[in-house]
Amino acid sequence: MLTLASDFGSPYPAAMRAAVRQYSDCEILDVAHDFPRQDVRTAAFWLREVLPYAPAPAVHCAVVDPGVGSDRAAVALRVGEHALIAPDNGLVVPAARRLRERMPAAGSGLRGVDPSPDGDEISAVAEPAAIEAFEIAVDDPASSTFHGRDVFAPAAALIHERGVASMETCSFLDPVDEFVDLQFPVPIERGDGADGEVLVVDGFGNAITNVPGDLLDGRDRIRVDGTAWPVADHYAAVDVGDGLVTVGSHGNVELAVNRGRGADRFEVGVGDDVAIRFS
Amino acid sequence: MLTLASDFGSPYPAAMRAAVRQYSDCEILDVAHDFPRQDVRTAAFWLREVLPYAPAPAVHCAVVDPGVGSDRAAVALRVGEHALIAPDNGLVVPAARRLRERMPAAGSGLRGVDPSPDGDEISAVAEPAAIEAFEIAVDDPASSTFHGRDVFAPAAALIHERGVASMETCSFLDPVDEFVDLQFPVPIERGDGADGEVLVVDGFGNAITNVPGDLLDGRDRIRVDGTAWPVADHYAAVDVGDGLVTVGSHGNVELAVNRGRGADRFEVGVGDDVAIRFS
Amino acid sequence: MLTLASDFGSPYPAAMRAAVRQYSDCEILDVAHDFPRQDVRTAAFWLREVLPYAPAPAVHCAVVDPGVGSDRAAVALRVGEHALIAPDNGLVVPAARRLRERMPAAGSGLRGVDPSPDGDEISAVAEPAAIEAFEIAVDDPASSTFHGRDVFAPAAALIHERGVASMETCSFLDPVDEFVDLQFPVPIERGDGADGEVLVVDGFGNAITNVPGDLLDGRDRIRVDGTAWPVADHYAAVDVGDGLVTVGSHGNVELAVNRGRGADRFEVGVGDDVAIRFS
Repeated sequence: MLTLASDFGSPYPAAMRAAVRQYSDCEILDVAHDFPRQDVRTAAFWLREVLPYAPAPAVHCAVVDPGVGSDRAAVALRVGEHALIAPDNGLVVPAARRLRERMPAAGSGLRGVDPSPDGDEISAVAEPAAIEAFEIAVDDPASSTFHGRDVFAPAAALIHERGVASMETCSFLDPVDEFVDLQFPVPIERGDGADGEVLVVDGFGNAITNVPGDLLDGRDRIRVDGTAWPVADHYAAVDVGDGLVTVGSHGNVELAVNRGRGADRFEVGVGDDVAIRFS
Repeated sequence: MLTLASDFGSPYPAAMRAAVRQYSDCEILDVAHDFPRQDVRTAAFWLREVLPYAPAPAVHCAVVDPGVGSDRAAVALRVGEHALIAPDNGLVVPAARRLRERMPAAGSGLRGVDPSPDGDEISAVAEPAAIEAFEIAVDDPASSTFHGRDVFAPAAALIHERGVASMETCSFLDPVDEFVDLQFPVPIERGDGADGEVLVVDGFGNAITNVPGDLLDGRDRIRVDGTAWPVADHYAAVDVGDGLVTVGSHGNVELAVNRGRGADRFEVGVGDDVAIRFS
Repeated sequence: MLTLASDFGSPYPAAMRAAVRQYSDCEILDVAHDFPRQDVRTAAFWLREVLPYAPAPAVHCAVVDPGVGSDRAAVALRVGEHALIAPDNGLVVPAARRLRERMPAAGSGLRGVDPSPDGDEISAVAEPAAIEAFEIAVDDPASSTFHGRDVFAPAAALIHERGVASMETCSFLDPVDEFVDLQFPVPIERGDGADGEVLVVDGFGNAITNVPGDLLDGRDRIRVDGTAWPVADHYAAVDVGDGLVTVGSHGNVELAVNRGRGADRFEVGVGDDVAIRFS
């Protein structure tokens, strides 16, 4: 499988898909092409949440590239049976790190479903895999303003054809020791709660923080920036239009409104601090 | 074939597609993921219009789910060779009912094209099929806020692998006698016209009513809420910017503007009453 | 491969895909379904930029059709191993013309990659291919307001199954000598620059003109409508928020802003004249 993701909107991604087809008949899965324009951090968050669900082996091609045409490098990371192709700006690094963990398989909660021989987990490697890095060598890196079509998609397709395990043999890949990292801000744990930050606002208006969801364990109310809100495990647990604090599918504390936009109700946006307190 | 539909926007549907791939290599067709948020009725209308064109056998997975995480059930309906997987809120019931009818095949108007051995029809069953229902058993239904990825997509994939005819043998399906129905409002026929309602406004701004199109047979003008409009069989029959009343591809009376938005010109929105009169 | 493109938004294109599947298991590539509504020229531009990257043989189905239901014809054009199916309004003619040229393959700039036996080019035909035209015969052309699903998609699928080389044998195709042309306006070259026009504004806000990019060769500044701007080969060559003139992936002069919207900064829209001067 080859996944494609970008902030290109439409119709540029179709040219990326066509470019893949010049080299490979592999399955193409579009992750998203409407990431906020040139917002590497938000795209990196979503790639971390989605890419690990792709069954291995998989090649992931992601392009959010404010530095296109400059001298920024292009990288190919390898984690076990996954390869991640992107500009060297940190875009796929959180996803690469997440791919080192074992994750529950989708569907493992269905009665009687044991989705994998080694027990309900995907992205599974016996030992946490290292992240190996390669630089993508381009003859004339500044020759185009559309590296998605001309560099990243063909490189991903060629790596898919060669096989993730054989990336060393690709003519256009050079092993490198370093690549640009991207770390999400870490919340500060306190005895009476945590100081966190809004990482992303999703399309429903849910404000997704960087605070791990287990902070809410066993609580039915919590204070956010001084105001108390109900804690619930699903949106419909409160009346339509009411706010709540919950744990999203990403495992983080999320500020939400049942059938409304949490970011508006909690008056927060991406990058804002949030003080979460037990009382 | 497995179809996916939701109101999830982006990038959540990519995780549903990846979840399908954990269990099945089947073809995936995305119907839409931009249904109006948590608007079950509008989504149910579109699913009814689109799903019957998918060649059988097919499994359809649709998620518009205001009650996610509450104790609402999840259902799998079967109509002939089609299975429909959804929250038990009526979302796929109009589509299931439509699948019991014989429909003209796309392309049957092309000269010399006889698309099916039994004559230009699809979704064909010798006798109108019953709607059979199963409940989807989930070990811990409240464990996730993302049932699209963790429940519905894997259930649909597993049903596809097992075969629609063998749903009885799926470990996570229990036959049930009842499921939540969803009926579109029925227009009131009158001697001088009909009293109907706007069901949906599409992306072009066309206001689609619940009034059957044959009401317009043989007429060249009709009154809507007291104003007379031309009746035409295509938009370009009137000047650019002019309003008209026509029959849409769904077979219902539609209020439209050539290259404009009918809902604005006729001053109607979803759920509004419309009085259609012959004179 | 069969490509689909339209201005239908959602969910109508899913019915087109389902209609294709009634006749063919071919791969479907969605080019775009969010072209500006009924804007044939903008869609024609993007189709010209994207379709040639699809590996041959390919059938392309495009529907932007302000005249649906009127007596406008439906056409199928053939250029080498590509077929283009569309309303007879010029929509696919620029793409057909472009398909007669040899183009660099995506990926040919990757080190060590020689993508094709005859040297780094795609859409390659030994001699520029003629454009051959067929009219699509429909039994009752006015029978539907959704020709995308009922005429164009099935016709494309049936042509794909028959083979582009055998279009003559399709029951619903009649050879014709003429079809509606669509020409983009031609810039006027001058000794001191060129007088051009904005063809398209893309989703990033870049204003794409009809002026060939080689006008900028060897220049580091240029005047647009009287104001001087830096010329650069990539957006990040200027500070964030600053304007620049560059050559886009389409090869034309483009008015842009690094991480901003060029159309706003240069105060131009689709169809506006732009006077480009060397000094």
